[in-house]
Amino acid sequence: MKIAVLGAGVMASALTIPLTDNGHKVNLWGTIFDIKIIETISSTRKHPRLDITMSQSVWPFYVEELEQAMDGCQLILLGVSSIGVKNTVKKIVPFLKDDAIIVTIAKGFELDALGKIMILPDVIDKEMPKRLQSKIPIVAISGPSIAREVVNRVKTNVIFASKNIRAAKLCQMVFTNSNYIVCTSKDIIGTELCASLKNVYAIGIGICDGLNEKRKLDTMNNTKAMLFTFAINEMTKIVKVMGGNIKTVTGLAGLGDLYVTCKGGRNAAFGKLIGSGIDIKKALEKLGTVEGYQTTLYAYKLVQTLVKDKKLDSEKDVPMLMNIYRILYQNQQCEMIENV
Amino acid sequence: MKIAVLGAGVMASALTIPLTDNGHKVNLWGTIFDIKIIETISSTRKHPRLDITMSQSVWPFYVEELEQAMDGCQLILLGVSSIGVKNTVKKIVPFLKDDAIIVTIAKGFELDALGKIMILPDVIDKEMPKRLQSKIPIVAISGPSIAREVVNRVKTNVIFASKNIRAAKLCQMVFTNSNYIVCTSKDIIGTELCASLKNVYAIGIGICDGLNEKRKLDTMNNTKAMLFTFAINEMTKIVKVMGGNIKTVTGLAGLGDLYVTCKGGRNAAFGKLIGSGIDIKKALEKLGTVEGYQTTLYAYKLVQTLVKDKKLDSEKDVPMLMNIYRILYQNQQCEMIENV
Repeated sequence: MKIAVLGAGVMASALTIPLTDNGHKVNLWGTIFDIKIIETISSTRKHPRLDITMSQSVWPFYVEELEQAMDGCQLILLGVSSIGVKNTVKKIVPFLKDDAIIVTIAKGFELDALGKIMILPDVIDKEMPKRLQSKIPIVAISGPSIAREVVNRVKTNVIFASKNIRAAKLCQMVFTNSNYIVCTSKDIIGTELCASLKNVYAIGIGICDGLNEKRKLDTMNNTKAMLFTFAINEMTKIVKVMGGNIKTVTGLAGLGDLYVTCKGGRNAAFGKLIGSGIDIKKALEKLGTVEGYQTTLYAYKLVQTLVKDKKLDSEKDVPMLMNIYRILYQNQQCEMIENV
Repeated sequence: MKIAVLGAGVMASALTIPLTDNGHKVNLWGTIFDIKIIETISSTRKHPRLDITMSQSVWPFYVEELEQAMDGCQLILLGVSSIGVKNTVKKIVPFLKDDAIIVTIAKGFELDALGKIMILPDVIDKEMPKRLQSKIPIVAISGPSIAREVVNRVKTNVIFASKNIRAAKLCQMVFTNSNYIVCTSKDIIGTELCASLKNVYAIGIGICDGLNEKRKLDTMNNTKAMLFTFAINEMTKIVKVMGGNIKTVTGLAGLGDLYVTCKGGRNAAFGKLIGSGIDIKKALEKLGTVEGYQTTLYAYKLVQTLVKDKKLDSEKDVPMLMNIYRILYQNQQCEMIENV
């Protein structure tokens, strides 16, 4: 099979590993931000950010070669981040085959002008022209998956979630091998909520690491374990009232992904910085985009809507989320994170 | 209130901190293994293993002073390990007040001669003389609670589980303060199963750390997250068929305790050693008692019983547990841990 991977960043490029290991050909298209990467791959076959030699089955394409990159590809892996999704979707529409399937690594949710939640696959669908809306299946990749480890062929188990379970199962067949194991799920709402909320809660658990540093204690693992447990329980409550499957939260997309997100990445690092006493603005300057920071605001607004609809009691059901919101947006002390 | 803490080891002694912080008097009785500790406390008020000065409200008692130590105490904290429980219970029976409540830090389960599961509170009850059986409430402490952190007054949230919820609530009042928060639970079977099984699964996750070391990879967090998630799901299945509450597994006694157990302690260290290629016998010699090693055998036997009763399919429902058993007792390669 020939697959178009759109975006040559770390995660998108890492996913060429299971694809080429499985004998597929990959057209790797670089966005405007990936010109250097495509240049380097073209001349040396090395990926400058992954520091590996790419398989001979990967063909690099420059930003102006999108049509060629997508030519003959049924499976389109949208490998750009949430911010770049809308723009990229617009670009690819003219070249989509009728039987195309979009797989996306970007995930999460937005709120529309009326405060209604829009999960990312719906955002993608809405960017399509009318004739394609609800026609092109969208499959979201979720679960504990650090790109570097996928490259190292560390055993990784992920979830491909889609309303269209047949499309998800086709993608499962394409990607799965003994190192990269794909499970499928129909619970797209639960999966997308977990993918977003885990970043928020990882900030909260990171704050605890920062407090630990500030207090010069050995460890605060009792508190971290408490917060980790509460995070899963609060995510369960939100997913439940939103109509998702609560098993998603205690599965790879929830529990598993929260676990790796707390182990590293910018959300946990951001939490740690502000927990240790660094100003929020300075921490953001230092780290660049911290997805969970913005998502905390969305999550708070979502909770407000659910409270208004009498589906949730914010202080009783999601006190940790409320504390994270207050710390990040209402100037509350980081010590608040322990008050649950 | 005056409370007898029996056993002067690390965890029992750590629990004198919330008790004395709450204004209670504590009689700290040392077993035959604690003579040095009681000596040091008596002469210097320092606890040699915790390296802290004990509160003036803690009165040390030597092994021969059990009657005096228990005199006037309604609340008896059984602070000895699982191995010492039966012996200590026999000793305390003559001095138990009619309204006594036993709180135990030892937890877990045994199998009786017929292979029937006996959770530790039942083991304690059975050691009582007939006239006291089912009369003395037994409250088991569970949840993520590293002793050193309790001493450091790190925020800790634990579960007091008992069939007798009134007794659990009385103990909750005695122990709870802003650093040491006690929740109560009636799900004694779920709590005890989690307390045991988490040690088994922590070995499995430790094995992954050992494999990582052996393979000289950066990290294997994708795999660890997968195993952590599977551990919780397998524990859920076992607790469910045993009649426990599945919410216990995703609460502090399950998820929370597995989290800290993986962070440190002998079970995780044992797993790491054997995962890195060390012989099981040598690893046991190096570490001394590894609770989870014995428990794996119990857990395997429990699963066998459940399979016989057609309540569980071992390969489908608890493959990770089966792999841990085979690695520890059937000479299977540690790499098996990834085959789930």
